[in-house]
Amino acid sequence: MQETRPYLPWQLVNDFMIDVFKAYGVPEADARICADVLLESDRRGIESHGCNRFKPIYLDRIKNGTLLPVTHCEIIKETPTTVVMDAHNGMGMVAAHQMMEKLIEKAKVYGMAGGTIFNSTHYGIAGYWTTMAEKAGMIGISGTNARPSVAPTFGVEPMMGTNPLTFTMPTDEDFPFNFDCATSTIQNGKIEYYERENKPTPAGLVVTREGDTMTDSGAILKEMRKGNCALLPLGGMGEETGGYKGYGFTTIVEILSAALAGGPHTKALSGKNDDGSNKLYRLGHFFFVINPEFFMGLDTFRQTSGDILRALRDSEKAPGEERIYTAGEKEYLAWMERKDKGVPVGETIQQEFIALRDECGLDYVFPFEKNHP
Amino acid sequence: MQETRPYLPWQLVNDFMIDVFKAYGVPEADARICADVLLESDRRGIESHGCNRFKPIYLDRIKNGTLLPVTHCEIIKETPTTVVMDAHNGMGMVAAHQMMEKLIEKAKVYGMAGGTIFNSTHYGIAGYWTTMAEKAGMIGISGTNARPSVAPTFGVEPMMGTNPLTFTMPTDEDFPFNFDCATSTIQNGKIEYYERENKPTPAGLVVTREGDTMTDSGAILKEMRKGNCALLPLGGMGEETGGYKGYGFTTIVEILSAALAGGPHTKALSGKNDDGSNKLYRLGHFFFVINPEFFMGLDTFRQTSGDILRALRDSEKAPGEERIYTAGEKEYLAWMERKDKGVPVGETIQQEFIALRDECGLDYVFPFEKNHP
Repeated sequence: MQETRPYLPWQLVNDFMIDVFKAYGVPEADARICADVLLESDRRGIESHGCNRFKPIYLDRIKNGTLLPVTHCEIIKETPTTVVMDAHNGMGMVAAHQMMEKLIEKAKVYGMAGGTIFNSTHYGIAGYWTTMAEKAGMIGISGTNARPSVAPTFGVEPMMGTNPLTFTMPTDEDFPFNFDCATSTIQNGKIEYYERENKPTPAGLVVTREGDTMTDSGAILKEMRKGNCALLPLGGMGEETGGYKGYGFTTIVEILSAALAGGPHTKALSGKNDDGSNKLYRLGHFFFVINPEFFMGLDTFRQTSGDILRALRDSEKAPGEERIYTAGEKEYLAWMERKDKGVPVGETIQQEFIALRDECGLDYVFPFEKNHP
Repeated sequence: MQETRPYLPWQLVNDFMIDVFKAYGVPEADARICADVLLESDRRGIESHGCNRFKPIYLDRIKNGTLLPVTHCEIIKETPTTVVMDAHNGMGMVAAHQMMEKLIEKAKVYGMAGGTIFNSTHYGIAGYWTTMAEKAGMIGISGTNARPSVAPTFGVEPMMGTNPLTFTMPTDEDFPFNFDCATSTIQNGKIEYYERENKPTPAGLVVTREGDTMTDSGAILKEMRKGNCALLPLGGMGEETGGYKGYGFTTIVEILSAALAGGPHTKALSGKNDDGSNKLYRLGHFFFVINPEFFMGLDTFRQTSGDILRALRDSEKAPGEERIYTAGEKEYLAWMERKDKGVPVGETIQQEFIALRDECGLDYVFPFEKNHP
């Protein structure tokens, strides 16, 4: 797919996001973390969680009071291997960063560590946090609950979030094993993509209250907002193709995100009061870190995981398929493609960036403006 | 579905299996563990892993030398939170039992514990081990690799096992949350069931070397043995319905089962040499235990997880569906139905039990024999 959008240099977008976050009241050190999390998503080609979310998911929420720009991370309980943190509705990314730094230090000493955050907000890609562990030579596991959009098997009501269950693990290759995706078959961002491309959403991924599958991408997005349809778990509708397994994975994340801290869950995470007004998100996240040095060592782990991934890629392809990927490989390829070019930004982001610059009184000039003097 | 098979009393089958295991050289204490693991599967209604496997998966393998009846569990490395164990090709169930006892004690003191076993054999239902943690008021996580039968996304070659990724978690209900199933869409046992019922296997669950889906259940079983077809990961073929996600989960289990100990993986786990002769299985398993008392406490955990599961069951059903289940509920219902009746045993198991009794010179009389004097 040929990229037609203009690119912005990584450093420029990074600096710009930090300055805007600061103008919105986020302390500089925190703004640096948040900008890096959003850009890491773009670096990996996961555009659903990158700078496209800068305004709607973070800045707009700071403005409407559902996200506090200054994050008070309160440690409610701490042991040599565990941490429970109250994020007090501040930046989920700032809380998660502090949590992972603590857990990595604990896992260096004890081999295993686990933490949970409650009263939090959107923490970006789960894979950012598990990659912090991987960069320290450890296995990272994380997940988060979210606004209810997924129906249980045999159900039609949106009850749970798209709840990622994310693992990043060291390898001896240029990139780690990084499995970072929703436990539902599909998530909103992909349906938005189908709509933009004027394509139907494949059958069996979305269910109406009447129990039918929906494929009209525009209609799905409209009805989703009203709660009139729900995403199906990985494996699809019913039990025959394993839908109960995806439902199980989503439930595991729902439980771990809430129950270790005793936080809210399911319908309570809608972000809306009954009268339609905004309410605090109060999300929960969990994090586990496992240090291979406490087993047979990091070198052994790296070599074995690398051997497994190479064996998978080298196995027999289906006719017509040229390549078998392993989790994290496409993200690495996206980075290779983009690292010298920058972030591709479409019309919406361009307009948002210009408006934010003007709103915050900043003096950035974006390359894409040069074509429109 | 009306049960037409005769029932055997739980105690009778338990005692019988222990006596046969002993006659095969398994020490009595180990035989008790193994019989309990197999029967627990029947108690949960998971007949694919119960006393139907007693002869083919355990006794026959002791006979052909690929499973040693006396299990030498050697601790290769141990830290306050971790254990690496070499099972020396003994009974995987015995090794797993010792591992979980150690990890639960560690998690009582440190909150988190993890272990891996290599050079092992079939360890029964993964949920037995995670339930040991749950009975101690903790979260249990386990998985194992297995004979390669699952193809990666865009591939057609059987490369990985059906690799369960199992979680059991405490609740405030009469039964725990227990998610215990293969990460592939379907596993052999279910295809055998379809064959017995003269039903096709649903499309999109099995792929041929030509990249086509196969639905003839008898033909699938035949071609599977030759490696001419493979199971598809949860989410099905290709990427459109999320098949790469199931593939990712299967790979996570493949890595964790082998890489923490540096054990074999993928095609090396076929159980066959190139000339078709048997070779040692050398399976790997992993185990993690998380103690909620080191977070906000077990009572908080139990209440929150119970609330989540009740909310899911109480949510709106699809038209025509009367009930929404949560993971572990059907297993509990099977036990409620069976606990006073016993184990239903079909013709094959009846014949195996009679032959084993005679072979071992035991004097059991099975109730089903009374109808055939």
